[in-house]
Amino acid sequence: MQNNAWFVGDDQSIAWREAPVPEVGADDVLIDVRAAGVNRPDLLQRMGVYPPPPGASEALGLEVAGTISAIGSAVTRFSIGERVMALVPGGGYAEQCRADQGSVMPLPQTLSFEEGAAFPETAFTVWTNTFEAGGLAHGERLFVHGATSGIGTMAAAIASAMGHEVFGTAGTDSKVKAAEELGFTKVWNYKTEDWSEAMQGHGGVDVALDMVGGDYVPRNLAMLRDGGRHVSIAFQAGLEAQVNIMAIMRKRLTLTGSTLRARPNAEKARLRGAVESSLFPLVSIGKLKPHIGLSLPMSEAEKAHDAMRSGALIGKAVLTR
Amino acid sequence: MQNNAWFVGDDQSIAWREAPVPEVGADDVLIDVRAAGVNRPDLLQRMGVYPPPPGASEALGLEVAGTISAIGSAVTRFSIGERVMALVPGGGYAEQCRADQGSVMPLPQTLSFEEGAAFPETAFTVWTNTFEAGGLAHGERLFVHGATSGIGTMAAAIASAMGHEVFGTAGTDSKVKAAEELGFTKVWNYKTEDWSEAMQGHGGVDVALDMVGGDYVPRNLAMLRDGGRHVSIAFQAGLEAQVNIMAIMRKRLTLTGSTLRARPNAEKARLRGAVESSLFPLVSIGKLKPHIGLSLPMSEAEKAHDAMRSGALIGKAVLTR
Repeated sequence: MQNNAWFVGDDQSIAWREAPVPEVGADDVLIDVRAAGVNRPDLLQRMGVYPPPPGASEALGLEVAGTISAIGSAVTRFSIGERVMALVPGGGYAEQCRADQGSVMPLPQTLSFEEGAAFPETAFTVWTNTFEAGGLAHGERLFVHGATSGIGTMAAAIASAMGHEVFGTAGTDSKVKAAEELGFTKVWNYKTEDWSEAMQGHGGVDVALDMVGGDYVPRNLAMLRDGGRHVSIAFQAGLEAQVNIMAIMRKRLTLTGSTLRARPNAEKARLRGAVESSLFPLVSIGKLKPHIGLSLPMSEAEKAHDAMRSGALIGKAVLTR
Repeated sequence: MQNNAWFVGDDQSIAWREAPVPEVGADDVLIDVRAAGVNRPDLLQRMGVYPPPPGASEALGLEVAGTISAIGSAVTRFSIGERVMALVPGGGYAEQCRADQGSVMPLPQTLSFEEGAAFPETAFTVWTNTFEAGGLAHGERLFVHGATSGIGTMAAAIASAMGHEVFGTAGTDSKVKAAEELGFTKVWNYKTEDWSEAMQGHGGVDVALDMVGGDYVPRNLAMLRDGGRHVSIAFQAGLEAQVNIMAIMRKRLTLTGSTLRARPNAEKARLRGAVESSLFPLVSIGKLKPHIGLSLPMSEAEKAHDAMRSGALIGKAVLTR
């Protein structure tokens, strides 16, 4: 069986080249990739600042959808030919991708391969950070920066489907409009408006999902209500943040955060189970699906990265075969 | 009935003067004070930076022990003459002190009035921050700055009685020795040792209880294990702290904090119930009691404050009548 995949070169270029078909361990499945999701960490991996964890494929790509082409001896949940989607620690931009069975989900009938490839990374990230770490509870409000990003659009889709008000920021008026059409209650243009002040005037929020870091952190804390939670999932503007301890104490705030990729397989399997039981009911009735902003053939990975860098993308980019 | 109490003057002086006996509302008890606990926030209140919450007595004092001298019409848990200890939002340095019945506890047979007056503030603070907010779990390690403070000695007493290893800092070698005799597993002299490096070399901790703030916060975060929790209860060295978002994400840390005084009565009543059910079993068998470092007559409040400011005090100071 042949395998080709997108690998990162020394000069941050990427190349589609042949590689051994991944070895299938007892708990692994091999997926014949029909679509691969594109994520911001893929750009970081190109830049050399987000290496794959030990044992993972060196090829790019953190999520795929396709059909099972081989299974390991201990695999019980899946059989060959089944339509699936999976979170993977690497190797998604490929013809064949290996996944731990604990990170694989059946592809719901309501999702295409493209939509399936756009689901795992953002759904797992939003679920574990917003609902598990952030504890977003009935009647509470969510705030998400990057409203039109893959994370932002998924957060709004999930939270609005579950009845929450969702607020956020975007960098242009047209993105503000697009985000509000995709489920946000209200979005502010961070280039022209003081979103923190505005949100405070609007009554504040209970959970802030932040991927900006830097001076956004104190501004996020300022708009949190009593008992509010701040969850960091990236730090695009700076990895150091100044926090006011008195505000944390007075409002009894919580700051936390996490990464997804480096978690052990058992933890990903637990999270996958939580996503299936919590979100599949919404997916199966067509109330929740990822928003695809760009779909390109697998050969155009470079173009997909350009689109993500440009900031013009709304929702997710996927590569298809 | 006569009442005298210690009040703060305009020039940060304090004066023992007559005041009306507190009015007893339906849910209040009046306590004939036999001993009042002295706390660091009392010094802040003198300096004008920690005012009593609305409705609380303007007199100093956050905890008392004594006997019930009057009860409101809705009070069911207590009767006149009963020995009690109580957390109060103010008015403890007095002859008569009003308390919401939800914040009052029977004084266990194993505690004197002095010990009872030294119990509520530190026990409530340690319980809610270390075990509730910090979630210190079986087999986990605690770190507490100010090992010989009222909070430090209570934290060590509770956590060591419950089987946890407890680490901390103190400012002199004799205080290090005293703290290790009072239940700490190991204490570092912060003037001569890099406690954060040392603790990391020692395997790290799961929960850090911090009252220092400022540059202690990043050093605390550095010694937290994966999944560790940082709980702020004061900020003696600075209310702004620099935190590393990548470390929070990578180790999945949580930062939180709280104040006790401004919580609503219903929340204090809930916490009082948690303290009674969790800590009274240890108190009643003599395994847990506050460490009294200084006991003075009520007339010597100024001297008690001097002792607290001097940094020489080990454990709690109380004022008795």
